[in-house]
Amino acid sequence: MKLTVISTRKEILTLQQHFEAAVVLDILRATTTITTALSHGCQGVMPVTEVEEARRIASQHDQVLLGGERGAVKLPGFHLGNSPLEYRQQAVKGKRVVLTTTNGTGTIKLAAEKAPVVLIGSLLNARAVATKLTGFNSVLLACAGTQGSFSLDDTVAAGYIIKELLAIKGGNNYSGQRLAAKRNGTDQWYAAEVPVDNALTDVVLNDVAVAAYRCALYYGDNTLAALYDSLHGQKLAQLGMDDDLTYCAQLNITDVVPCYKDDVIST
Amino acid sequence: MKLTVISTRKEILTLQQHFEAAVVLDILRATTTITTALSHGCQGVMPVTEVEEARRIASQHDQVLLGGERGAVKLPGFHLGNSPLEYRQQAVKGKRVVLTTTNGTGTIKLAAEKAPVVLIGSLLNARAVATKLTGFNSVLLACAGTQGSFSLDDTVAAGYIIKELLAIKGGNNYSGQRLAAKRNGTDQWYAAEVPVDNALTDVVLNDVAVAAYRCALYYGDNTLAALYDSLHGQKLAQLGMDDDLTYCAQLNITDVVPCYKDDVIST
Repeated sequence: MKLTVISTRKEILTLQQHFEAAVVLDILRATTTITTALSHGCQGVMPVTEVEEARRIASQHDQVLLGGERGAVKLPGFHLGNSPLEYRQQAVKGKRVVLTTTNGTGTIKLAAEKAPVVLIGSLLNARAVATKLTGFNSVLLACAGTQGSFSLDDTVAAGYIIKELLAIKGGNNYSGQRLAAKRNGTDQWYAAEVPVDNALTDVVLNDVAVAAYRCALYYGDNTLAALYDSLHGQKLAQLGMDDDLTYCAQLNITDVVPCYKDDVIST
Repeated sequence: MKLTVISTRKEILTLQQHFEAAVVLDILRATTTITTALSHGCQGVMPVTEVEEARRIASQHDQVLLGGERGAVKLPGFHLGNSPLEYRQQAVKGKRVVLTTTNGTGTIKLAAEKAPVVLIGSLLNARAVATKLTGFNSVLLACAGTQGSFSLDDTVAAGYIIKELLAIKGGNNYSGQRLAAKRNGTDQWYAAEVPVDNALTDVVLNDVAVAAYRCALYYGDNTLAALYDSLHGQKLAQLGMDDDLTYCAQLNITDVVPCYKDDVIST
């Protein structure tokens, strides 16, 4: 199984290969918000790249909520912003949402050009996403990024999904040393040098994926520290949105894995 | 002090800002090789982007060694490849080297367009590089990358330099949580939640820099594991160059910090 992590939305455009499945990660906050909405009974989320397009689509349908942000702030006339805390059961149950965000919604549409199956990932559903991925041979973990650059929050979340996936596949760690030794038939001599490394799986990671995984191992249970360490987390904290960070940092609290198909995200 | 890590050579072109200093990192193997050559008494290394240019320059000078690789393999007619193990004292002492490599040498020239001071970094001289950096307010850590993408070996080395720099500046860890709390005047309530975090420094990291630093903390003394975890490390291992990995993984074994100026790298 080949797992490829990319750090920014624009990198999707440069990918030559296609994948059996893709997971979109925009932890602060689009994909956390989508996961939350669907776990609270929302009927479906339609991701839309442009604000005016979102307004137009919403105006053509009854019973549709308009949600989204620019610069992390709710848009004028919208029912909801992009805080997952707004997407409570009483707000979204049985309703549909048209959502436009700076990075996340556009990334979802681009990912759909590279894979027939597009899942929505977050820390909230990391284990559930990993479980869904076990059947695929090639998977893209597409981080939305922040301001066109590598975003720690998204990348670390990719790392937690990889960690869960390796656990499911029976490998408690990933080791390039063991991989090389196995290939060379000299597996023995590493035993003394690599303390944490119990099993090899068939999972192959690209370099960003390894870094993401190592970061997840570093942060461990303290996912909140990872979010605060990110530029995006710092920005939200400056805007007084610490509660959003605390919410988004929750690991494995839902089994809902939203899936994007025919322009709509549903369970 | 602002520390910006970039993952690939091509990202240098997209940077709007300039920096007081830059450090170029191509751990496998160009910058490790340059560090080695200069610590073994080499008079100077001239980095050249194209193979034919390297041949031409070498042909115009006496007593100049021609070194470099393409696809990790020594070029035809060259005196030396790109393995640091070849750059022994008896081979390079008192001599000058014209060096061309796939990524590293080009990255050095690009970095010079963004900063008046360009240093050559590796795991071998991580602490020495960090010591040199303490006087600057804005520093670019420019990773060469592998095949145009994020390279774990380079990024982790950036992390070790950051780790050394934070140690010199009196911060034993970096914490976005503490940063946010300090700004909000609510430093107290984090105390119970963030166990590893002793002091804040004036160092500000971009997101790749934080990931690099966290990876360095994860790998700790096992730098060799980081190199084997990288695509480039795997490739060199496949070519039987495990000894190069072992050499390149050595941390803080020299105080030599090569500096690029007027087309030549010297101490």
